[in-house]
Amino acid sequence: MSTRACGRAPDQIRPVTITTNYTRHAEGSVLVEFGHTKVLCTATVETGVPRFLKGKGQGWVTAEYGMLPRSTHSRMQREAAKGKQGGRTMEIQRLIARSLRAAVDLKALGEYTITVDCDVLQADGGTRTASITGACVALANALQWMQEKGMIAANPLKTLVAAISVGIVDGLAVTDLEYTEDSAAETDMNVVMTAEGKMIEVQGTAEGEPFSHEELLAMLALAHKSIDELVEYQRRAIAGL
Amino acid sequence: MSTRACGRAPDQIRPVTITTNYTRHAEGSVLVEFGHTKVLCTATVETGVPRFLKGKGQGWVTAEYGMLPRSTHSRMQREAAKGKQGGRTMEIQRLIARSLRAAVDLKALGEYTITVDCDVLQADGGTRTASITGACVALANALQWMQEKGMIAANPLKTLVAAISVGIVDGLAVTDLEYTEDSAAETDMNVVMTAEGKMIEVQGTAEGEPFSHEELLAMLALAHKSIDELVEYQRRAIAGL
Amino acid sequence: MSTRACGRAPDQIRPVTITTNYTRHAEGSVLVEFGHTKVLCTATVETGVPRFLKGKGQGWVTAEYGMLPRSTHSRMQREAAKGKQGGRTMEIQRLIARSLRAAVDLKALGEYTITVDCDVLQADGGTRTASITGACVALANALQWMQEKGMIAANPLKTLVAAISVGIVDGLAVTDLEYTEDSAAETDMNVVMTAEGKMIEVQGTAEGEPFSHEELLAMLALAHKSIDELVEYQRRAIAGL
Amino acid sequence: MSTRACGRAPDQIRPVTITTNYTRHAEGSVLVEFGHTKVLCTATVETGVPRFLKGKGQGWVTAEYGMLPRSTHSRMQREAAKGKQGGRTMEIQRLIARSLRAAVDLKALGEYTITVDCDVLQADGGTRTASITGACVALANALQWMQEKGMIAANPLKTLVAAISVGIVDGLAVTDLEYTEDSAAETDMNVVMTAEGKMIEVQGTAEGEPFSHEELLAMLALAHKSIDELVEYQRRAIAGL
Amino acid sequence: MSTRACGRAPDQIRPVTITTNYTRHAEGSVLVEFGHTKVLCTATVETGVPRFLKGKGQGWVTAEYGMLPRSTHSRMQREAAKGKQGGRTMEIQRLIARSLRAAVDLKALGEYTITVDCDVLQADGGTRTASITGACVALANALQWMQEKGMIAANPLKTLVAAISVGIVDGLAVTDLEYTEDSAAETDMNVVMTAEGKMIEVQGTAEGEPFSHEELLAMLALAHKSIDELVEYQRRAIAGL
Amino acid sequence: MSTRACGRAPDQIRPVTITTNYTRHAEGSVLVEFGHTKVLCTATVETGVPRFLKGKGQGWVTAEYGMLPRSTHSRMQREAAKGKQGGRTMEIQRLIARSLRAAVDLKALGEYTITVDCDVLQADGGTRTASITGACVALANALQWMQEKGMIAANPLKTLVAAISVGIVDGLAVTDLEYTEDSAAETDMNVVMTAEGKMIEVQGTAEGEPFSHEELLAMLALAHKSIDELVEYQRRAIAGL
Repeated sequence: MSTRACGRAPDQIRPVTITTNYTRHAEGSVLVEFGHTKVLCTATVETGVPRFLKGKGQGWVTAEYGMLPRSTHSRMQREAAKGKQGGRTMEIQRLIARSLRAAVDLKALGEYTITVDCDVLQADGGTRTASITGACVALANALQWMQEKGMIAANPLKTLVAAISVGIVDGLAVTDLEYTEDSAAETDMNVVMTAEGKMIEVQGTAEGEPFSHEELLAMLALAHKSIDELVEYQRRAIAGL
Repeated sequence: MSTRACGRAPDQIRPVTITTNYTRHAEGSVLVEFGHTKVLCTATVETGVPRFLKGKGQGWVTAEYGMLPRSTHSRMQREAAKGKQGGRTMEIQRLIARSLRAAVDLKALGEYTITVDCDVLQADGGTRTASITGACVALANALQWMQEKGMIAANPLKTLVAAISVGIVDGLAVTDLEYTEDSAAETDMNVVMTAEGKMIEVQGTAEGEPFSHEELLAMLALAHKSIDELVEYQRRAIAGL
Repeated sequence: MSTRACGRAPDQIRPVTITTNYTRHAEGSVLVEFGHTKVLCTATVETGVPRFLKGKGQGWVTAEYGMLPRSTHSRMQREAAKGKQGGRTMEIQRLIARSLRAAVDLKALGEYTITVDCDVLQADGGTRTASITGACVALANALQWMQEKGMIAANPLKTLVAAISVGIVDGLAVTDLEYTEDSAAETDMNVVMTAEGKMIEVQGTAEGEPFSHEELLAMLALAHKSIDELVEYQRRAIAGL
Repeated sequence: MSTRACGRAPDQIRPVTITTNYTRHAEGSVLVEFGHTKVLCTATVETGVPRFLKGKGQGWVTAEYGMLPRSTHSRMQREAAKGKQGGRTMEIQRLIARSLRAAVDLKALGEYTITVDCDVLQADGGTRTASITGACVALANALQWMQEKGMIAANPLKTLVAAISVGIVDGLAVTDLEYTEDSAAETDMNVVMTAEGKMIEVQGTAEGEPFSHEELLAMLALAHKSIDELVEYQRRAIAGL
Repeated sequence: MSTRACGRAPDQIRPVTITTNYTRHAEGSVLVEFGHTKVLCTATVETGVPRFLKGKGQGWVTAEYGMLPRSTHSRMQREAAKGKQGGRTMEIQRLIARSLRAAVDLKALGEYTITVDCDVLQADGGTRTASITGACVALANALQWMQEKGMIAANPLKTLVAAISVGIVDGLAVTDLEYTEDSAAETDMNVVMTAEGKMIEVQGTAEGEPFSHEELLAMLALAHKSIDELVEYQRRAIAGL
Repeated sequence: MSTRACGRAPDQIRPVTITTNYTRHAEGSVLVEFGHTKVLCTATVETGVPRFLKGKGQGWVTAEYGMLPRSTHSRMQREAAKGKQGGRTMEIQRLIARSLRAAVDLKALGEYTITVDCDVLQADGGTRTASITGACVALANALQWMQEKGMIAANPLKTLVAAISVGIVDGLAVTDLEYTEDSAAETDMNVVMTAEGKMIEVQGTAEGEPFSHEELLAMLALAHKSIDELVEYQRRAIAGL
């Protein structure tokens, strides 16, 4: 018996689709869908590293995030037209980038920079977690491409990373919040984990009432289970299944 | 016998697909494809008009244009990160907006603003002409939605507008240039026409050698024929075929 | 026996000082010191609320954060001169603002906006947690001032909020990281709690290796203990002791 | 018999004045007047080329455009104060630059950059076409100066380029629209041609009704005749007559 | 006997020309020339006042300043293209505005704003002092225009203001420094005075060695004499002589 | 008998405190207080010089100025949030920088850049003059530090510079204006002098009525006396007294 308005069980994620080779030009290109949330993740390989890494014999992985103006229920002003990226955008792209770097041996990458762009085509909650999950596959594809081109001898991917949003809605811990749940949640927590179930990022925020230690543990358990499922989707996508 | 490297006849456009209802939130949402060029066009209806039109009893139609950073062969810097839209972007979005306004009776629209966002997912030449062609369908869909909602009594759409790029490549007038042709063209001309074959915009530019009156006429004839074909695609998409 | 280079026990915070009425003009003005980290927190009361809250019969609490150019070991470029606030600054000021709002009944505040500016005079790690801890006292002082002026009938402060950074350094969970520890930490976690020990924000980031569930629990326990101590400092400062 | 409110025949341009050596410092300095429209065009020669041309053994010609705040009927906000150049400004300066480059053999120029600034002192329609016409003379003067200084062996100027605006006003095709005509025109077309009558740019825009093929041809014929006259003014100015 | 490289006597200003009605659209339009320095000053009258003066029953006078990119010996980057006005520009336009306000009874002006734009067409030292001197005439012309239109009953101009730069060059106090003198000056001082010889602004800066009280007095005496002469030029220009 | 509302004699400055080593990281760090005006001045030594000085064998001294948002009676918007520094800020930091450079033999400094940041913690009039006075001590401390480190053989400090604001308030010439006096002053003049009493900057502005030669002399006399006193405070601070 489900107590969620959306009809899902508390620990049930939305249908997930990970489509590789979605566009032609990028070294890795993935369309990731968590229910109605759709994000295009493209990985670009470029020679060289940012100035602060010059001569350190290592590579770099970074990320950028954007939402198409009408990916949302009502139209958002285009950040390029406003002349700056907002605080939420910056927060999210820094989170995606840190998460991806945790999956890669930057020394083994060599002096290359990989930029993963995550652009939201349609939003229905969980855009940052879908972005991380899809971006990791685009990154994996780009690293395979580099290996095929002979740019790197071994694949520097150490693990896969995936992410899920969990929260407390109407007093109940639930996973993979869609937009209407996200708006109503007392607590919203984004969790990024490795394929081995270790934590890379935990970001919990009380939107209404503060949350207890027990609620934190309940949310973490849901996140762990959901991320295990997401990693399985990632593995199949990378394997070309 | 074709003399184009791409294998097409001089007057042959690329395969065209116009998919309506491509995303969920916008009042009109169209994915338009001219060969490998793919543009997402979403139309947003909002109450009210810009300040300079307040109290004049008319509506407004405007447009914005953007390219995803890796829609292109090599990655372009994100305009939101650069902090401003470039000259090319501004030129294109002004062109799209003027073209769309030529299709609408703004008096009959009433005090509403329709913004059409054209975001290039994948670029292979002709992004501005594909944008105009797709945006007109998204606009038509949004106007239908307004009529269904009872916001407007009659449909203010006066005609359909479509656009094509034509050019002189290796001395030959050809239509619907793809990226490699566009890069090599001596002359590049974008033409916007109504369904009746009248001209809204003609923008011809000599990239290499100046062009003659005869070449101009040859390009215009190709544009006319191609736009007739595009309007047929638009009609079928709007009819839901 | 301490295993920290700084000589502190794992669960020992730095000397804390909270000086109220530090400057003359602000409705609340606090200098907070966590060891060598010194932040000036000033609370400003203004009539009215942001546009999105107009007519909703509630107040607003927001925050801004900045670092003086030479508060750090080497000079940072002034954000006003760069022409924009960086991603880190935005992230921190959004965190401070959310934390403070969790302490206030915005309905009971009425249509006033309180802005708390947190400006770092000297940095040695933990500037965001010191900021939250000091800002809450400045906010409490400003609310007292409003009550004295008769602007509000009852004090809308629901609880106190304080914050601490905890982390894993050399495999050991420790509290209140100073700069050299922060730079070397495998994991860094900022925790914001109420006086009752409930969580408002938990932001854990693996800088090096991912962290385990057990490490998370160890860090949370340290945070809980330290925040209890900080709340005691806050209470004494607000009481004027 | 004239049918234009301004008293001119449909194919009659306004009085044209091209004053060379108008200011002291620039390598080429021209005041161009088309009736009441007055534009100061200064050409600056600098060593080196933009980054994207480094090492290609060629030069570059670029242009910038601006309007003094009170060059117009009512005062426009200064773009420097607004903090950015508008879309119209960018469109125009890109047009001027492309037009000038069509007149120069960039290989023969060598690794120099010539920047032509076109600043409108007084506007009465046709500022972009006056700018191109005057800028070409300033450019020619700067190239003469380079030759006199021994910086280039031969003059890389291949031809002269001039520009005129033509349009349909009250159903009649007319040339060199002044401000009141421009505001009332159904169609406005800017044409840039070489001294040999070949086309460099054709930019026609239906402001009201779309235009027919016959109207296009009528406008082109007017443009051709007017540009022949403008080139004669340019030749005399360059010859110092 | 002159000891100045330029051949002028220490107390001799350059030839001054003040041309009124220089452009057509502005309510006051003046070309002011101090030797080779040429500045176009246009005064614009607009209804209403800035927000901070709303409802105070007074008017406002403000000023903006700009240099054409090639008004100078080598080309300066266009401030509109850089995206901001530099510190020098802001300093100068604030100085011009303060000086003009000292000449007007703002209460008697009523709720109008007059903006005087000073745009340097050619620079050879003293652009700010020429700007003030010319702007005052443009302002006077605009006030006459307002009176003729019946917008104001009486002329709110209280006095004329004019400005001169004086300095110490090679140990000698001299007036109206041209560019080469300005570059070599030990001290540079800009003085703004009323027609009655009272001071509005005195801005002296030691570029090399600090200056003595005696040098200050010598410079002030020169300024006084030169401004008397400039006011005479202003009077003749306003009288239409 | 005092005629000033603040109770001070016309020639009496406020209590002055100069605290050295106020923060830990900067090479020179001074808190300067003129009554309730408090400014933190930190001097940063960096290797290298700005581009325009490269290879000229000299150093550079520059300054930046900022006000904390609630250093003032009512909160000012943060310049970093506005996205630019205002004209007043730029004017002040250029003034501080020029004043400091007058105290240093830049040739003897060698290719180092010293940046002095002046951040106002609390404002009550005279922030720019307090900044210059404190910044000179921070600069002196930084130069001592460089000498101790062996970066420079001899101390390039040629003299001390200090600054005071003087003005005409209610017809009386007074020194060191506090905020209420500054707001009411007819004339406000900032004077920067060397320890030897020579002038570096004199900036007098009539806020209300123009000022006479006699008033100028009276203000200069007060400035001279006050600066002598300030230099004595500087000497004691540098001597560590």
